[in-house]
Amino acid sequence: MQTSSFIGAVDIMSTQTATERPILHGGRREAMREAYPAAPQPWIDLSTGINPIPYPIPTLPAECFTRLPDPEAATRLESIAAAAYHVSDAAMVAAAPGTQILIELLARLLPQQRIAILGPTYAEHQAAWARGGGSVDLIPDLDDLPAASSLVLCNPNNPDGRIIPPARLRALADHLAARGGLLVIDEAFADLADRATSMAATLPHPAIVILRSFGKTYGLAGVRLGFALADAPRAAAIRTALGPWAVSGPAIAIGTIALADPAWLAATQHRLTHAAATLDRLLTDAGMTIIGGTPLYRLAATATAPDWHDRLARAGIMTRRFDDHPSWLRFGLPADHTAWARLAAALSGNRPPLANHPDQ
Amino acid sequence: MQTSSFIGAVDIMSTQTATERPILHGGRREAMREAYPAAPQPWIDLSTGINPIPYPIPTLPAECFTRLPDPEAATRLESIAAAAYHVSDAAMVAAAPGTQILIELLARLLPQQRIAILGPTYAEHQAAWARGGGSVDLIPDLDDLPAASSLVLCNPNNPDGRIIPPARLRALADHLAARGGLLVIDEAFADLADRATSMAATLPHPAIVILRSFGKTYGLAGVRLGFALADAPRAAAIRTALGPWAVSGPAIAIGTIALADPAWLAATQHRLTHAAATLDRLLTDAGMTIIGGTPLYRLAATATAPDWHDRLARAGIMTRRFDDHPSWLRFGLPADHTAWARLAAALSGNRPPLANHPDQ
Repeated sequence: MQTSSFIGAVDIMSTQTATERPILHGGRREAMREAYPAAPQPWIDLSTGINPIPYPIPTLPAECFTRLPDPEAATRLESIAAAAYHVSDAAMVAAAPGTQILIELLARLLPQQRIAILGPTYAEHQAAWARGGGSVDLIPDLDDLPAASSLVLCNPNNPDGRIIPPARLRALADHLAARGGLLVIDEAFADLADRATSMAATLPHPAIVILRSFGKTYGLAGVRLGFALADAPRAAAIRTALGPWAVSGPAIAIGTIALADPAWLAATQHRLTHAAATLDRLLTDAGMTIIGGTPLYRLAATATAPDWHDRLARAGIMTRRFDDHPSWLRFGLPADHTAWARLAAALSGNRPPLANHPDQ
Repeated sequence: MQTSSFIGAVDIMSTQTATERPILHGGRREAMREAYPAAPQPWIDLSTGINPIPYPIPTLPAECFTRLPDPEAATRLESIAAAAYHVSDAAMVAAAPGTQILIELLARLLPQQRIAILGPTYAEHQAAWARGGGSVDLIPDLDDLPAASSLVLCNPNNPDGRIIPPARLRALADHLAARGGLLVIDEAFADLADRATSMAATLPHPAIVILRSFGKTYGLAGVRLGFALADAPRAAAIRTALGPWAVSGPAIAIGTIALADPAWLAATQHRLTHAAATLDRLLTDAGMTIIGGTPLYRLAATATAPDWHDRLARAGIMTRRFDDHPSWLRFGLPADHTAWARLAAALSGNRPPLANHPDQ
């Protein structure tokens, strides 16, 4: 007889894993290659919201690979992140190896709660909170917020780019604080939004936990770096739960340089905003309707979205479709002239490559 | 009134953090520099058990930084790790960003349990299980195993290198399995031990979870890579709890190459065994008694250990002391000729550098 609670937890988790519908993420290159073996090479991956022009990877000292990361180096990174995100005190910043692991961690620190998720949104939130044992309600509107629950939302939202005004978020947070609930705001796509979009400057607030992602804006998703922003005791609890050396040496080295470079961020914002407008024109010309997005991705709607997804895949171009919204298709930004030209050609049938698109 | 269980958990954790004695780890370079500002530069860090001659860092493709790691790439790494660790099925391997985060995770997956830890050993085990809410007994001898508990031990042990014979471990695991308990074996230092030391080849076993560390033997602790080895459902549960993309692109790229290179491992074993014997002679000549260790570190005992720690620090050499065993001092291996010479000089007073030590 197995009575260990770990074994019990495993059994529960295994069952959930088996019956859960797998989450369709962007970036499944190998799976796409298998499904479309005749597609032209190389694949153009527009299935993610990751900046295709990454922050220039600095020369990494061998020490950042060979040594255990110094706790002081992680603390320094948290100070730089505090400045970058306009958090008033670095004690309210906890660095982590990506925000995904923070989502899993929060779901385990808040188990058995009633959690409302404003959706549709990034699917891993729902999956992680369900795995954490909480009761999860996916709510389409903030007015549907059930009593006695915590709330998770993405701002700007993925995939539609919807932004909730700061005053509304503040009122929600105060409301939740009064009931002992929590407002978890995933600001993965806030770097390139208007500065007032982020609630980071309002910290400390007793109900607010913010997640910030490094890899998307900086185009370095493989590095695995993200941050939780929360009042100091909560940030300390998250740091403790991650344990020492959670963030790799290369991630600390790269994040410390990149997050202290506002000039690169400003130039990137300008460039991506221009590129997103160009992408909108291409998609509109192909008969799609732009229904939302951020500078890192555009959400298009068309009755023929499944056909477009297939047709683009046969042209070696990966896009992101949504099982629950079959008319939606999300496009990331092409990386270079060749990718823009191939996308334009695939969208226009036999139209020759455009002469006048961003080329970086 | 704050009633959220997360807020409660934070309060508990904050209190624990405040009253817990901080764990003295090796590798606190910046703290040592502040404590000994007049020490000669550069510091020689012998305070960890990390191989000072790292696996040669391969040229890393930009993609491993820029892209979200492909799930297929992580699965391939787990297959290579299965072969390296002699696990019969890669489904029993879960890759993680370091073993530390696995320790924290196991402690949360097994909360409220009665946990016995065979000690003294790596201090983070006790801290993590206590944070996880379990009742933790530090037991000096396997015969003291309390009823109705799971057991955590390091094999070979850190810092004394004690190895528990496989037959004993197997008997313990069977005993625990019959009671629904778990045997967590931290094999962080098993790579360079006799192959029979590891229990990995006995998997699947209903009670055994094994932790393997990549960074120590391969001298790449900053990369953050480790593995949990367990029966397939449990490995799947650990993978699920970590979430997607837990391991960074550079860690996957480096681990995939290094763990498939048994020739490097064999040469390293030979070299480190020779170096450890040389280190033992230096320490013995200085009046210390070698009481244990592995090829990556040596544990010395001497009534004047605190003085030696201080004297070596003033010579710019960091070693590892133990609050609970003030007569112990642990030495990692010097990296190169200069480091060997400075250590020999510091240990011998004014004796000139040895002419005949390993020089790599």
